[in-house]
Amino acid sequence: MQNLRFFTSGESHGRALTGTIEGIPANLALSAGDIDRELKRRQSGFGRGGRMKIESDHAEILSGVRWGKTVGSPITVLIENRDHKNWVDGMSADPKFSGSIPAVTRPRPGHADLAGAIKYHQHDIRNILERSSARETAARVALGAIAKKFLSEFGIRVGSYVIQIGRVQSPKFKVQSSEQELLAIFDRAEASPVRCPDEEAARGMISLIEDAIKEGNSLGGVFEVFVTGVPVGLGSHVQWDKRLDGRLAQALMSIQAIKAVEVGLGFEMSGRSGSDVMDEIFYKDSAKSQVTSRKSQVASHKPLHAGFYRKTNTPGGSRAA
Amino acid sequence: MQNLRFFTSGESHGRALTGTIEGIPANLALSAGDIDRELKRRQSGFGRGGRMKIESDHAEILSGVRWGKTVGSPITVLIENRDHKNWVDGMSADPKFSGSIPAVTRPRPGHADLAGAIKYHQHDIRNILERSSARETAARVALGAIAKKFLSEFGIRVGSYVIQIGRVQSPKFKVQSSEQELLAIFDRAEASPVRCPDEEAARGMISLIEDAIKEGNSLGGVFEVFVTGVPVGLGSHVQWDKRLDGRLAQALMSIQAIKAVEVGLGFEMSGRSGSDVMDEIFYKDSAKSQVTSRKSQVASHKPLHAGFYRKTNTPGGSRAA
Amino acid sequence: MQNLRFFTSGESHGRALTGTIEGIPANLALSAGDIDRELKRRQSGFGRGGRMKIESDHAEILSGVRWGKTVGSPITVLIENRDHKNWVDGMSADPKFSGSIPAVTRPRPGHADLAGAIKYHQHDIRNILERSSARETAARVALGAIAKKFLSEFGIRVGSYVIQIGRVQSPKFKVQSSEQELLAIFDRAEASPVRCPDEEAARGMISLIEDAIKEGNSLGGVFEVFVTGVPVGLGSHVQWDKRLDGRLAQALMSIQAIKAVEVGLGFEMSGRSGSDVMDEIFYKDSAKSQVTSRKSQVASHKPLHAGFYRKTNTPGGSRAA
Amino acid sequence: MQNLRFFTSGESHGRALTGTIEGIPANLALSAGDIDRELKRRQSGFGRGGRMKIESDHAEILSGVRWGKTVGSPITVLIENRDHKNWVDGMSADPKFSGSIPAVTRPRPGHADLAGAIKYHQHDIRNILERSSARETAARVALGAIAKKFLSEFGIRVGSYVIQIGRVQSPKFKVQSSEQELLAIFDRAEASPVRCPDEEAARGMISLIEDAIKEGNSLGGVFEVFVTGVPVGLGSHVQWDKRLDGRLAQALMSIQAIKAVEVGLGFEMSGRSGSDVMDEIFYKDSAKSQVTSRKSQVASHKPLHAGFYRKTNTPGGSRAA
Repeated sequence: MQNLRFFTSGESHGRALTGTIEGIPANLALSAGDIDRELKRRQSGFGRGGRMKIESDHAEILSGVRWGKTVGSPITVLIENRDHKNWVDGMSADPKFSGSIPAVTRPRPGHADLAGAIKYHQHDIRNILERSSARETAARVALGAIAKKFLSEFGIRVGSYVIQIGRVQSPKFKVQSSEQELLAIFDRAEASPVRCPDEEAARGMISLIEDAIKEGNSLGGVFEVFVTGVPVGLGSHVQWDKRLDGRLAQALMSIQAIKAVEVGLGFEMSGRSGSDVMDEIFYKDSAKSQVTSRKSQVASHKPLHAGFYRKTNTPGGSRAA
Repeated sequence: MQNLRFFTSGESHGRALTGTIEGIPANLALSAGDIDRELKRRQSGFGRGGRMKIESDHAEILSGVRWGKTVGSPITVLIENRDHKNWVDGMSADPKFSGSIPAVTRPRPGHADLAGAIKYHQHDIRNILERSSARETAARVALGAIAKKFLSEFGIRVGSYVIQIGRVQSPKFKVQSSEQELLAIFDRAEASPVRCPDEEAARGMISLIEDAIKEGNSLGGVFEVFVTGVPVGLGSHVQWDKRLDGRLAQALMSIQAIKAVEVGLGFEMSGRSGSDVMDEIFYKDSAKSQVTSRKSQVASHKPLHAGFYRKTNTPGGSRAA
Repeated sequence: MQNLRFFTSGESHGRALTGTIEGIPANLALSAGDIDRELKRRQSGFGRGGRMKIESDHAEILSGVRWGKTVGSPITVLIENRDHKNWVDGMSADPKFSGSIPAVTRPRPGHADLAGAIKYHQHDIRNILERSSARETAARVALGAIAKKFLSEFGIRVGSYVIQIGRVQSPKFKVQSSEQELLAIFDRAEASPVRCPDEEAARGMISLIEDAIKEGNSLGGVFEVFVTGVPVGLGSHVQWDKRLDGRLAQALMSIQAIKAVEVGLGFEMSGRSGSDVMDEIFYKDSAKSQVTSRKSQVASHKPLHAGFYRKTNTPGGSRAA
Repeated sequence: MQNLRFFTSGESHGRALTGTIEGIPANLALSAGDIDRELKRRQSGFGRGGRMKIESDHAEILSGVRWGKTVGSPITVLIENRDHKNWVDGMSADPKFSGSIPAVTRPRPGHADLAGAIKYHQHDIRNILERSSARETAARVALGAIAKKFLSEFGIRVGSYVIQIGRVQSPKFKVQSSEQELLAIFDRAEASPVRCPDEEAARGMISLIEDAIKEGNSLGGVFEVFVTGVPVGLGSHVQWDKRLDGRLAQALMSIQAIKAVEVGLGFEMSGRSGSDVMDEIFYKDSAKSQVTSRKSQVASHKPLHAGFYRKTNTPGGSRAA
């Protein structure tokens, strides 16, 4: 993980977003389709804003891949902003278009607008919001798709599903679900317009979103992420910045509108005794006698039979996630 | 913040812990006493383990400070492990003491023991637990004390208090409390044996801890951290790894036993409408017309009158922290 | 300097090179022309290969600049490989073009071919040479042009000139030349087809290059770089990786074909006494009584009147630089 | 290499120097003696200053090693400054000793004194020179000894020897020397008071140093470093900051008083044709048919039979190194 670095760039209505990831080994099979599939997932979802409909993101692989395989060099992905055609002058790098569209001068609460404008000395808040926009996550999703493809070589699967939107919560799923159960939950989520595996809860969420749309409002929510097939020993206890939970928390909390992250039982543990929340350790009944543990507490030794999961909170609403 | 780096080293029963911080400007007034004060706070608290009593940590400043002032070079702090005298052979770097104490071979659930032993190919789990131990945080507290001293030059105050231990919760404190109110809450926490500002809740927590001690059990909890006087523009929206919430989440989640982090309302926002959770923006009634916002949502533009706060969950219990 | 990071990506005959630089402050005037000017300088020079003629590089600014000013977000520059039109299938990311051009199987001496093919498990050396090619420096030049523009705001000027090609050396220029003299030398270099400020030496170099072209050979050389107007205190003595000379040496030695770097007198100092090579320190005769030093030894306290300079050796020849 | 990080701290007459290295795998045999051996080599050498005689450095391993083996956690080494006993008050962190020794107010030419005092706003230059002093390299040598021990597990040997002091040069050693020849040259250097493998040159150097001592002067010099047994593929062509030559150049140029670095033939290549300086590639006559190359140009694919070497220039003189 130390060896992997990634960065994104690009404004929301600029010419394009780009993302570069370095450290993916050579000879990994990778196509634009692998990335486009995840970009499409990002753009799906009931109640998404209008822009999601006009833009169907496509990843152009600019470097690092030849004839369907990575070559070890940095992989740069370019995602055109299809809406850019309406912003050619307004977002141009060329000074001759200065003032061609009016400045944004009213900072929105709950956004980077005010802080960004002060920090970067901008009178036109557009110069902040274009970069702070959650559209930036399209580039992160594209790079994440590459990482996901790499992990799949090791049988590692990443999945997620929504368990709450507004006041509607789905019934809880067991942390210690088997890999098969988790993947089945994930499949149901993939088929749901609100990515919720529970059909009844999903209906409630849809109805809530319809109401919010009528009011011109947005909704928060909670989703869970799980990873299966994780080998023992990712992350490390030797230094604060190598600890896996911390790195995961940063990755999640750096997503626009995410305001809370839990690992395993999270806050639920606060009210319990230590003896109730410790991962039990078992011998696996396989020939290899692999050691496993049943509850999922520390992501760095998540067993096949549990996977870790985490909840995060998206106050920006289901439409922003 | 980019320019500040810090690392710790040291085993729990080794000769000493060390911490090095680089990037603190020259000419900051700093004494061992500034650090010892925070080390003492770390060791206080009702129901702490026996070791806390035998060791009164003291910081020796090995470098970076002369005649009470920093000189710009890296500051290294050494904290002797006073219990080391009982472990001189057992923790020696010298091969001649090999086997002088028995190996630890039973991994504890909920710890780095199993994952660490597999990752680092260790048969004696002591080689893992000595470093993964929460005692390592003594070095982080020492370096944090230096950072706190630096921040105090700008009128920035950091405080915290416990709001839950086990099933006992204190009444909520308002996020939008004024700086004075927050500091008053903090003062009450400092005077409480369980660091809880509410006396009735504190009594319940103490009683719960006494029960847990009798059972040989531990308890989880939740604490809140606030910072006042933060200038606009720490962190940045321009890149995922510069975002302040993400950096704070990593710093907190990298502490042993912390399993959840919230910023502002956190998970509570999930059930609300977007219109309810946005930070409102006000003009300050001062001559300078400084802009402020009342609710605390995005740490990067926290106003004087709110400060940000966050809750974290410590399942390892009040005694493990 | 800590806060600035930059990366490049792209293959030599791929769709495009890209470079991203982060940390340039907002509100810097910047245009594609500022970058193209440096790209053009990179492509000029007597005896350049044929490709230099067919490609006139142009920087497209994809992000980070609006209406002629930086906005604080990462700046990504895209440089199309104009020769790519002849390599569309051969360099495609799409697996359907596999094998459309023959593999390169003969590693060239003095290149990354052999080591790269072994390290990255490639049978087609093209997958290495496309990235290791000195064409990658076009992206570095583009990002360097942005840095140069930023430095120019502080009156800092960067210049260079060639002092040797093959066995032809120009007369030496004094290290302690004034800023005016240095910039005059630089102007003469800019006007020379071999970037050598001395006309007679330049004629000898041209004749040598003509001979080498006839033989199908290449030539090495030495160039000097100077910077004027540098403020006191760039770099730092506090940690090995903050020292300016080390950072400069890495930046230079990481350029393809550069095999030697000197600061100030460099190797010439080896044969001298310490008393001969120390920078003398003078008071400036200005009202401000600014302190200066005459000889240029330590780049971190280079005075206005000297600037630092360094020599580097390009065994790949004048045509590869 | 990405995974290894190291830092040093400590003032020249402070209580101690410390160095921390992180990323050394567990289970490496390591003792204080391994480090002390290199510290002793650092302190040997004809004409060293008086301090070298009074201090015989000793490494205390504070962490990361137990019973003679590394455990994977950060290794911190503490080297007491034996001369500190004469500086207890003068270098104390305690403000009560302020002014106990006079301030240094005269900046020495060719040192960090002036630039450092301006950068860090210090009136007493001691606050700069204590850290900028070449004594800091004792901590780097200690950490380097650990790295050397690690490399020795793979049969990788690092050696060096002096080829010039002042105007006295030893005859050249062939770059393409075999591993055996290089190690023999190294052994002769180890036995020489000036670390020069050529006895006649060594005599000249000694005489020169004696003269310089009488004059109160110092001398520059050049040394070569070689590494044998290096596997193919250290470093990488994929990004500027992963290139091995650049990383080596930074490491060397960040040493106090080093002002020039060459890889392989270095500046000598400038005067030659490209066809003369390319590494030829050969098949090894071993059963494994390993590929090798005879000349040493690119460090990243140095073969057993050549090793790379580099020259560096130490204008601060043999006594300053």
